[in-house]
Amino acid sequence: MAVIVQKYGGSSVADADKIKLVARRVGKAQDQGNKVVVVVSAMGDTTDDLIDLAHQITPEPNEREMDVLLSTGEIVSTTLLAMALRSMGYQAVSLSGGQAGIWTDETHSKARILAVESHRITKELDTGNIVVVAGFQGITRGKMDVTTLGRGGSDTTAVALAVSLKADKCEIYTDVDGVYTADPRIVPQARCLKEIGYEEMLELATWGAKVMHPRAVELGEVYNMPILVACSFNENPGTLIHGGASMEVRNKVSGIAHDNDVAKITLVGIPDKPGIAATLFEPLAMASISIDTIVQNAGLDNITDLSFTVSKGDLPKAMKIIEPVARSVGASKCISDSNLAKVSVIGTGMQNAPGYAARMFRTLFEAGINIQLITTSEIRITCIVSRDKVADAVRALHKAFELEKE
Amino acid sequence: MAVIVQKYGGSSVADADKIKLVARRVGKAQDQGNKVVVVVSAMGDTTDDLIDLAHQITPEPNEREMDVLLSTGEIVSTTLLAMALRSMGYQAVSLSGGQAGIWTDETHSKARILAVESHRITKELDTGNIVVVAGFQGITRGKMDVTTLGRGGSDTTAVALAVSLKADKCEIYTDVDGVYTADPRIVPQARCLKEIGYEEMLELATWGAKVMHPRAVELGEVYNMPILVACSFNENPGTLIHGGASMEVRNKVSGIAHDNDVAKITLVGIPDKPGIAATLFEPLAMASISIDTIVQNAGLDNITDLSFTVSKGDLPKAMKIIEPVARSVGASKCISDSNLAKVSVIGTGMQNAPGYAARMFRTLFEAGINIQLITTSEIRITCIVSRDKVADAVRALHKAFELEKE
Repeated sequence: MAVIVQKYGGSSVADADKIKLVARRVGKAQDQGNKVVVVVSAMGDTTDDLIDLAHQITPEPNEREMDVLLSTGEIVSTTLLAMALRSMGYQAVSLSGGQAGIWTDETHSKARILAVESHRITKELDTGNIVVVAGFQGITRGKMDVTTLGRGGSDTTAVALAVSLKADKCEIYTDVDGVYTADPRIVPQARCLKEIGYEEMLELATWGAKVMHPRAVELGEVYNMPILVACSFNENPGTLIHGGASMEVRNKVSGIAHDNDVAKITLVGIPDKPGIAATLFEPLAMASISIDTIVQNAGLDNITDLSFTVSKGDLPKAMKIIEPVARSVGASKCISDSNLAKVSVIGTGMQNAPGYAARMFRTLFEAGINIQLITTSEIRITCIVSRDKVADAVRALHKAFELEKE
Repeated sequence: MAVIVQKYGGSSVADADKIKLVARRVGKAQDQGNKVVVVVSAMGDTTDDLIDLAHQITPEPNEREMDVLLSTGEIVSTTLLAMALRSMGYQAVSLSGGQAGIWTDETHSKARILAVESHRITKELDTGNIVVVAGFQGITRGKMDVTTLGRGGSDTTAVALAVSLKADKCEIYTDVDGVYTADPRIVPQARCLKEIGYEEMLELATWGAKVMHPRAVELGEVYNMPILVACSFNENPGTLIHGGASMEVRNKVSGIAHDNDVAKITLVGIPDKPGIAATLFEPLAMASISIDTIVQNAGLDNITDLSFTVSKGDLPKAMKIIEPVARSVGASKCISDSNLAKVSVIGTGMQNAPGYAARMFRTLFEAGINIQLITTSEIRITCIVSRDKVADAVRALHKAFELEKE
């Protein structure tokens, strides 16, 4: 009997009726002869409501307590789904992250999974139960304190359980049909991909596609666990994320990603010598500010300009930290721009085909879009452009790379 | 350093502002040099809201799942109170029932505490923490599944922890000033008692005073743990429930209790022979119907009438079960009356003073109130009367026994 792990996000379990619909899907998976483990998120806006409640108490809630508070949201969902399954005649049992054997480190609010000991789940499956597990949470070894896994936590729980249970597949059900060649709200012709490689999905997810958290994709890649992303509310086939051979030989772009949450900081006229980058970026790292893209222009007379991007929310904090540091290394000024966006062309096909970058730049040029920064990885080319041009850029690139065609 | 255990009910932690008020009280107890453990209930109507949510899923939610669902309510309260304490500069940590070491049997929805292993609490207290424990919940030995303790569960948690920690005192904070000589809504002259014995409190609680659950009082009595019942919202001294000597010598009535949730079933003309009572009451016990008062009238010609009372909610079920059984033992008919109430005079003083019963009956007679049934214990005399007369009965008795005077 195959084990499958399904995960349903907050919008899929937002109310009693939706939970009953999910129960029907889950039950069907067992009817088809599978052992089924279901991971659920908190109902609808529950997590935000709990955060609001904590902030009514204090502007800076203690992280340990916050984790325990937030973990109740997912637990509520598990019990309701288990009740719904039982009312339909299925055997079902809910488990907290701790009961499911999700052991984590003690980094509250963004704990990492250290191990999954799934014997309780296995035992429950063996007695015929559908096992409903609270996503997004774990428990520490020493004190058995509750932790949460941070953003994308429930996806990560699902993939980790699938790996531990040697499941055939991890199915992530959400409110979209799967992974698209571009954001369908911007490009009406965007196509839902049948399959995509882990690396491509990672680039898509990291660079702006909101379907699935990169952390969970990464975990899937490491353990080669196929992940199906599909919609909770229909029977469309969804997108299979896997590392199969069919992908390797494909020679094309799989999608256009974009991200509007971009702010750029440019340090003008800094000495082009070793150690400067470390001096600049260490204080930002200490303040937990994530740096996205770093570009250093070619220097003249050992003087160079350095630009990097952060999320818009981090910009004020980042400027406050970087300005004195920049002055101390001799920068002539520090400029910021928060009116930017990223657009990326992604595809394993690009690795051996140098024409893609040229086509991207020409397309943007012909659409009258100025490129502010360029960065690339093996399977991605990213341009930073003005935010008011990003939708045009996505549409133009989607057309230029013929993504509307199968 | 003395350990004290405080318990705050749902109305005391109903919103963020009330939680902050509670935090101030709790902090003060630590400032005064105590090690403080706080037990909290779920905020306001949370438990009812969660029950509603479950009933939106299914009319008969599974009890195991229901317990896990309801347990989240108390956990939310503990985290918010711990956050509030920390924001005021106190060290504090929240613990679930399981983390606090409350081990129970597996009777979901009304579990009994088997043992309290409070070493985690002791350790947290020793590091200077105020320990906030989720009331009403425990965990099973085998599967570490969450259970709830049923009605009065948080009071029971508090007393059990006080016993296990060898606390000086268990303080139960609620929305009333303490234990009154009668319901102040009915008798404006009712007085808040300074102290009361466990047995008297038990009779008061069992027979209709809603201040504290009898189960927790019983536990206090068994381990001789003094319990202070006082109001969360003021500094009034409250009522101390204890077994001290000062009580033994008192020779008076301590209060008048009443209960409107009474229905009576009378079986007319049943044979007065051994084994009949067992035949009648076993099927009711099997159906978990609690029988309150049983009165069997003196029989003529070996034929007798038997009356007993149940809660109004149980009446239809009880009639359905008892009618065929009554017929099978030869009863001529089965009558029910749901328009009744109980009124009780309670006090250790009554044990050696036969005049009390007479005074009670005369008082009711003079107030024109007909007595339908009478039962007594060592420290209580109870009359079943018509429900529309019960307020009059309480007022008349309160006056007759001079309870308005200290």
